[in-house]
Amino acid sequence: MPGRFITLEGGEGAGKTTLSRSLAAALAEVGLPVLRTREPGGAPGAEAVRGLILGQGPWDPVAEAMLHFAARREHVARTIRPALEAGIWVVCDRFADSTLAYQGAGQGLSHEVWERLCELALGALRPELTLVLDLPPERGMDRAMSRGDANRYEMQGSDFHARVRAGFLAIAAEEPGRCAVLDAAASADAVLAAALGATRERLAAPV
Amino acid sequence: MPGRFITLEGGEGAGKTTLSRSLAAALAEVGLPVLRTREPGGAPGAEAVRGLILGQGPWDPVAEAMLHFAARREHVARTIRPALEAGIWVVCDRFADSTLAYQGAGQGLSHEVWERLCELALGALRPELTLVLDLPPERGMDRAMSRGDANRYEMQGSDFHARVRAGFLAIAAEEPGRCAVLDAAASADAVLAAALGATRERLAAPV
Repeated sequence: MPGRFITLEGGEGAGKTTLSRSLAAALAEVGLPVLRTREPGGAPGAEAVRGLILGQGPWDPVAEAMLHFAARREHVARTIRPALEAGIWVVCDRFADSTLAYQGAGQGLSHEVWERLCELALGALRPELTLVLDLPPERGMDRAMSRGDANRYEMQGSDFHARVRAGFLAIAAEEPGRCAVLDAAASADAVLAAALGATRERLAAPV
Repeated sequence: MPGRFITLEGGEGAGKTTLSRSLAAALAEVGLPVLRTREPGGAPGAEAVRGLILGQGPWDPVAEAMLHFAARREHVARTIRPALEAGIWVVCDRFADSTLAYQGAGQGLSHEVWERLCELALGALRPELTLVLDLPPERGMDRAMSRGDANRYEMQGSDFHARVRAGFLAIAAEEPGRCAVLDAAASADAVLAAALGATRERLAAPV
């Protein structure tokens, strides 16, 4: 597809939203068409599923993963795929890796079930570049909690968040060609510079 | 599992709710422990997904099937499996066959995707007896519409309902050991008598 697909991943309070905004702005600055979106959500039905996932629960882990992938399917069908087909650069805050880190590493969903749901929901679509914002969970949780209004995932214990962090790092270690790990404890400017470096190097973006 | 699992299937207005009530009463009458339940729904999270499926849309067909199976997974985990393990007879108004008839025959979802979702959500659990209430769609729609408050499926055109009916009959033809087709145009008493006959014959129930 003519567009390019970048995802931002990481635990709570890692700075994904801030980076999504500054990265999209930098791409737009050099004249590239950019769409910023986020998960769960990014399409009307998917936003409704987001409300359900975060507002209800606890869910059976397989049911919860299916809800995430149902929302993702809507998001891809209505928003991401049409944008990529139109040559737009898509910057997406969370994607399938979050389900593997949160429901897999965090809640015990098997890698195999996750893979089968990926195939069903996404076909061959995968991000070309994934920026993994890595931060010790306690620092991320301080940031997330200071925002107020903690959601169901944010309210999990520190063991959960440590497993999620390890889950993201394992994904990055397994797919170094797709994933770049950024030190999210650095300043926002330094994180953006590292993200732009990876985008230049791996996607040949003129940023 | 010590309990027995009976599902009722069929199009709109075929009389599933009426039969579910009378069949459960007849089983209870001979001293069997019975649980009546229905889909989409049958557990708190699953009821919330039901509201989403029927209240929003249109959904991408794969996303819609995933939502149905997420709800079904919750229903099985919280309600059906514990009941069957406790030796209870479960009478369920709609189950996985409805997804194959509505999303498959009705909306074009492939049989293979449906099968893979069945495996993910249900493992090896399948109904032992499925009573398919068969009725010309126009008769069913007259009944369904007279109840008022038509949902998103009921409001589909007559072609859709004809495909759904054919879908249920194809399922019954493929699995004659599990499925019994009942003439839903007969009186409620005659439908119950046929359902009891099938339950006696196939599950050795003393009804």
